[in-house]
Amino acid sequence: MAIRKFAVAEAVFERSPKAGWRRVHRRRDRRAHGAPITIGFGRYLPNERLTETMRVDDVMVVLQRRPRVSTSTDAVTAGPGEIAHMPKGETVTIDSREEDAVTAYVTYPHRQDPVG
Amino acid sequence: MAIRKFAVAEAVFERSPKAGWRRVHRRRDRRAHGAPITIGFGRYLPNERLTETMRVDDVMVVLQRRPRVSTSTDAVTAGPGEIAHMPKGETVTIDSREEDAVTAYVTYPHRQDPVG
Repeated sequence: MAIRKFAVAEAVFERSPKAGWRRVHRRRDRRAHGAPITIGFGRYLPNERLTETMRVDDVMVVLQRRPRVSTSTDAVTAGPGEIAHMPKGETVTIDSREEDAVTAYVTYPHRQDPVG
Repeated sequence: MAIRKFAVAEAVFERSPKAGWRRVHRRRDRRAHGAPITIGFGRYLPNERLTETMRVDDVMVVLQRRPRVSTSTDAVTAGPGEIAHMPKGETVTIDSREEDAVTAYVTYPHRQDPVG
């Protein structure tokens, strides 16, 4: 099938190894056929905070709630339909804040989580 | 600024040259700093149909309405928060159907429209 559809309703979320399997950030990602991009969804519980140094470029599209994305020098808050580009090499903190959040993301190249 | 935010509310849409400037599909895209990806938003009027052969991989995240994306062999309909991956090389038709639609997209590598 040439066109692939990705729906959060069909995603089976797993705890993210980037949270050391201790926290509750859940994600589901899949590699696109024939392109070095990973497509996925993330789901956060209230007041989750995850910090990581980006090993890939990550484009996050907010689907629900208004997470805050920050580095040591700047921060943005993005609501539904808004996008945050987290460049490779930056150390980024995602804070779901008071409510849970759902995001879609596209990474270039493929996401590779650290071994949990 | 390390993190860049993209909001449809701030986008100034232009008619897409891929529609030969004759139709009303409007888009706004920007290149990500330091990565070969283009991030943007598209806006369609009711019953618009655009067909193009993909020169890049295009990941479309539906923000409003339920556009239909098809090739000669398959079709998907995607609603808010759902994603369609349109692979490079495929000839794809996007049909906004009865209502207007708003999408976000990420392309790899950079989108390059044909000269209108």
